[in-house]
Amino acid sequence: MTTYPTKALTGASHLLPSLFHRYRKYVERSLRSALDDGKSGLYQMLRYHIGLADGPVLQGKAVRPVLCLFASEASGGKWQNAMPAAVALELAHNFSLIHDDIQDGDIERRHRPTLWYLWGTPKALAAGNAMWAMADLALLKLAGYGVRSEVVLRASGVMTEGCLEMILGQHLDLSFEGRLDITVNDYMDMISKKTGALMDVSSRLGALIGNADPDTVSAFGRCGRLLGLVFQIRDDILGIWGDTKNTGKPMGNDIRKRKMTLPVVYTLEHASQATRKEIGRLFQKETLAEEEVTRIIAAMESVNAQRYSRILAKQKCSQALRAMGDISMQPWARKELEELSSFLLTREN
Amino acid sequence: MTTYPTKALTGASHLLPSLFHRYRKYVERSLRSALDDGKSGLYQMLRYHIGLADGPVLQGKAVRPVLCLFASEASGGKWQNAMPAAVALELAHNFSLIHDDIQDGDIERRHRPTLWYLWGTPKALAAGNAMWAMADLALLKLAGYGVRSEVVLRASGVMTEGCLEMILGQHLDLSFEGRLDITVNDYMDMISKKTGALMDVSSRLGALIGNADPDTVSAFGRCGRLLGLVFQIRDDILGIWGDTKNTGKPMGNDIRKRKMTLPVVYTLEHASQATRKEIGRLFQKETLAEEEVTRIIAAMESVNAQRYSRILAKQKCSQALRAMGDISMQPWARKELEELSSFLLTREN
Repeated sequence: MTTYPTKALTGASHLLPSLFHRYRKYVERSLRSALDDGKSGLYQMLRYHIGLADGPVLQGKAVRPVLCLFASEASGGKWQNAMPAAVALELAHNFSLIHDDIQDGDIERRHRPTLWYLWGTPKALAAGNAMWAMADLALLKLAGYGVRSEVVLRASGVMTEGCLEMILGQHLDLSFEGRLDITVNDYMDMISKKTGALMDVSSRLGALIGNADPDTVSAFGRCGRLLGLVFQIRDDILGIWGDTKNTGKPMGNDIRKRKMTLPVVYTLEHASQATRKEIGRLFQKETLAEEEVTRIIAAMESVNAQRYSRILAKQKCSQALRAMGDISMQPWARKELEELSSFLLTREN
Repeated sequence: MTTYPTKALTGASHLLPSLFHRYRKYVERSLRSALDDGKSGLYQMLRYHIGLADGPVLQGKAVRPVLCLFASEASGGKWQNAMPAAVALELAHNFSLIHDDIQDGDIERRHRPTLWYLWGTPKALAAGNAMWAMADLALLKLAGYGVRSEVVLRASGVMTEGCLEMILGQHLDLSFEGRLDITVNDYMDMISKKTGALMDVSSRLGALIGNADPDTVSAFGRCGRLLGLVFQIRDDILGIWGDTKNTGKPMGNDIRKRKMTLPVVYTLEHASQATRKEIGRLFQKETLAEEEVTRIIAAMESVNAQRYSRILAKQKCSQALRAMGDISMQPWARKELEELSSFLLTREN
């Protein structure tokens, strides 16, 4: 399996699978025009967050729009018609990031200060809300792209339900804080909502707009959700064992932030009572000494938490491809889906 | 003109105009069923916020749903068909209240602890988001009430644009903080967005669903927005001079919270340079002594800020009725609209 190191900082790279290159610049253009006209200071915050204020490069990889446009094209539709949905998905994802940063108190995202850190929580909260409203308005533009009213309405329902599930996932994640009894099952349920739901919607909407039959739409949804799990587990692995020169973050960064990620949950479930207590105690501290971070990572290694996480991600990746197994797809599309899933499984940042 | 004291605490009262009684219990029933099924802790927060967790009584007066159902019925439609919109409006309004409480750091609303105060900011933020998602989902249910897809789509666009405008208004309000150069015009523009937009949408959606012609829909929108201004100015007056036994808050409460309301903005615009500086200095303090609150209120009285606010509210109320002047309406509907506007102008809590 090819591994895909992507360029740090920008997320854009010649090492991204080819389907990213087909869509990304159009996504960027459409995003820019969606956020361009507003003169209110709030729009400046949105443009800053999304990276359009600083230059031509999209922050982030735009995985959701790419998945949506791909699903639309692979279903036999014109991917251009799905662009309003692709833009809506990226805006909705960024709404969740702006609010996540407030909730987690994170002062940096993609190596730049977060909105709440620069403008304060009250305005950042409003900016996140505005981003979500812009997402909903972007989606409604489907009607101008030859998509029938009934389909636009259904797309709007799918999108809103997906966002609600994502919010429930975020709430679940918050409620895990400080708990030592979270199981891997609990964790998978949480990320299925928090990360999986919007990837499900991305893929599902593309197929829906591409006029796929109901079975294909459902299969794309399932596939997208499983790819969301792959994405999140890979994120969890990189957050602890990622190479600093790729991720731009010191090793063990998520441990330092005492995040309850899969390797931690797995370790808590499988380590001895004493280790569990020790990790619990350390996770309640305001800051961790480097020596304590190292000790936690060693405890994780001792139960093979990294290996377990890699295997689970690989399983979810296979399930994602199997979800599309019975669906008829052009060879180019199946090949690109394999490239995409392989990228999500092996990316280095 | 009749004055309308309403019962403190519950918002429900035999003194509310009769159209409230026609709709409110159905609104309450529909709200309850919209929020009932979810088992997640997040839904418990929503039910608590909206008052459904404590007993049978809606918190708040449900002005937006009532306005929406009224506009629908007055346009010749069946008000029952507009219920999904009415529910959506009340949920969207409550989404904004949950986030406002975070932004303003308010620990009480309607005499009960606020969500963020009980559950912390991160979870309350998620609860507000969930409330908004529920609002959008409620609106989409119009399709099941015999409303055509095109109309549901248009309603969804109107609703989302209204919410975006409300959010921009909230951002504008936040950006006024600590500024002494805000004019009455600036202030009116801000409340037209922050409070007016959703009242505009409430009234407009009702007319739209009631199959009113485009001129009538626009007139209802304008009328609703102006009633929103009346509502807000009355709120500003009650926040300073309201009778404690009606409002349940001590006199001068908004001054104690250093809120930039119309009477304050008017005073800053019309008082002497020295008074302006003095108020500016006091508004920057963390807490105000009672003697300082009294001094600020005296400064406001010296420029007749209360009288000015009352007159402006009355003007907006007349404009609201005039906006409907050329629209054909049944006598009962015109009478009820007059009662509603008179209620908003003179309510005591």
